[in-house]
Amino acid sequence: MLAVRLENGIVSVSKQAAPRRPPGFALVRLLYGGICNTDLELQRGYYGFRGTPGHEFVGEVVQTDDGDWIGQRVVGEINLACRKCDWCRRGLARHCPRRRVLGIVKHPGAFRELLTLPIENLHRVPRSVPDEAAVFVEPLAAACEILDQVKIPRGAAVAVLGDGKLGLLISQVLRVHGAEVHQYGRHPEKLRIAAAAGVDTQVVRNGKLPRAKYDYVADATGSALGLRQAIEMTRPRGTVILKSTVHGLARIDTAPVIVNEITLVGSRCGRFEPALRLLRSGRVRVDRMISEALPLEQAPLAFRRAQASGALKVLLHA
Amino acid sequence: MLAVRLENGIVSVSKQAAPRRPPGFALVRLLYGGICNTDLELQRGYYGFRGTPGHEFVGEVVQTDDGDWIGQRVVGEINLACRKCDWCRRGLARHCPRRRVLGIVKHPGAFRELLTLPIENLHRVPRSVPDEAAVFVEPLAAACEILDQVKIPRGAAVAVLGDGKLGLLISQVLRVHGAEVHQYGRHPEKLRIAAAAGVDTQVVRNGKLPRAKYDYVADATGSALGLRQAIEMTRPRGTVILKSTVHGLARIDTAPVIVNEITLVGSRCGRFEPALRLLRSGRVRVDRMISEALPLEQAPLAFRRAQASGALKVLLHA
Repeated sequence: MLAVRLENGIVSVSKQAAPRRPPGFALVRLLYGGICNTDLELQRGYYGFRGTPGHEFVGEVVQTDDGDWIGQRVVGEINLACRKCDWCRRGLARHCPRRRVLGIVKHPGAFRELLTLPIENLHRVPRSVPDEAAVFVEPLAAACEILDQVKIPRGAAVAVLGDGKLGLLISQVLRVHGAEVHQYGRHPEKLRIAAAAGVDTQVVRNGKLPRAKYDYVADATGSALGLRQAIEMTRPRGTVILKSTVHGLARIDTAPVIVNEITLVGSRCGRFEPALRLLRSGRVRVDRMISEALPLEQAPLAFRRAQASGALKVLLHA
Repeated sequence: MLAVRLENGIVSVSKQAAPRRPPGFALVRLLYGGICNTDLELQRGYYGFRGTPGHEFVGEVVQTDDGDWIGQRVVGEINLACRKCDWCRRGLARHCPRRRVLGIVKHPGAFRELLTLPIENLHRVPRSVPDEAAVFVEPLAAACEILDQVKIPRGAAVAVLGDGKLGLLISQVLRVHGAEVHQYGRHPEKLRIAAAAGVDTQVVRNGKLPRAKYDYVADATGSALGLRQAIEMTRPRGTVILKSTVHGLARIDTAPVIVNEITLVGSRCGRFEPALRLLRSGRVRVDRMISEALPLEQAPLAFRRAQASGALKVLLHA
């Protein structure tokens, strides 16, 4: 089978033997994979990663212990947890300290023709959700995670900083939740996607942003500057949601955080159920967020395209 | 009257005219003032401050519109708010955007024989609380603020990082609240004060600290390194309370904050009522936290003493 490989910053594609399926696991044939900013960070050396990346996917179960799953179209939670520790028992397997993570930590990723995941990690994709939408379930779940962590009242004004893939999913999720969402970004063509979903959008010029205006600000810029700006945009006693990792140490000014008693909430992966519901109901739309879809063989090109300014989601298909 | 002055890092004492008392204000004769780390930061140029510092005090009302206050021993909330805006109406005058702050922002401080504060800012000191304890009400209120912001279950293990004045007040407040408090610091003699209050203490050597051990960590180190360490000590989904400002930009690693979905809560001033109750009941004791008390004339020496390693609270008396 074909598999993408990442090593020392180089993306390559080669033929490999099909993976062995451990008991309790499903063997899944890839339909679509999505390139996430985390994959681009792995390429830059984050986590000292080498191997097959990819954690956003939709596929079809081809082999498992339980015959009911065969032929099912599935997406999969990316954390492979021990299922025994306190975290797992509390329903927070995503924080299991012994977890492996699909395509990120000690488990080969989804950018290959056949992948394996524990059967408990899989979710059936409703018939009405096309493959090209289902591949967004994982990042959409990450956007939904905000609402699991922070109580945002319906009708509250919320700022989303950044208009990348995750920022666009976050603004849509918060809009569906009933917030009055103001999205700030630098790409008019990306902001138009949010605007079509009822989000107020603002093109940021010369870094000019409102100060101390919002009770809730989600930072999806992936930059230390963005995080500092998010803090400045937040009112006293307000909340900044940290939704994208900054590489290395981010320089932040703790004085406004303390003086204004601001809360910063780190936010990562989320439950898949709300994301699947949002896609099935059509309340979140992702079709305009796809830049292009390329075959697995062209993964090196796909990674380059995903890095281009202005790019949104680049998909790989088997 | 004598007044301390801070300008370009120099502490001086001079004779000045008594301040004019605006309507609604009280004229208060200083009994004791306490030197806070914020005063030392003002000396280093924080806020571009020049004038009379001092925001921790106990005094006696000598003149006001309402005769009932005359002769009363008082402490005072340090934020002079507009009393009209949304923040003030919501009972959060401490965040009034037009506030002045005693000895910090646009209102001369307490290190002078006579000071002025709005009558609403004053709290009577119970007879059983001596002057030398009452002067701790303001920083003790700041320690109590943690419990107004973060729901910490009784019995929860909480780490306090830092064994300075604020760290020692925080650990006592959390202990009285019923938490199992583990305080980490570098000064055995300071940690003994916490130990006497039932706090588990640990002298930190070579920066060795437990990792991902606590659901709640209060950082009272005042250093960027301390904040990074506090984050590392926190379990997934845990909370770090930022209790002391780091000068300039602090370099923090946002990756563990996001991956472990940690919440950082900035925390500043608090309500005076719980602090007064804790001192009156004797459940928090501050007598061992006083390094020395010097007369107002010796303020330059008192500021030097307050900066010495190993120093705790240095008081000024009129």
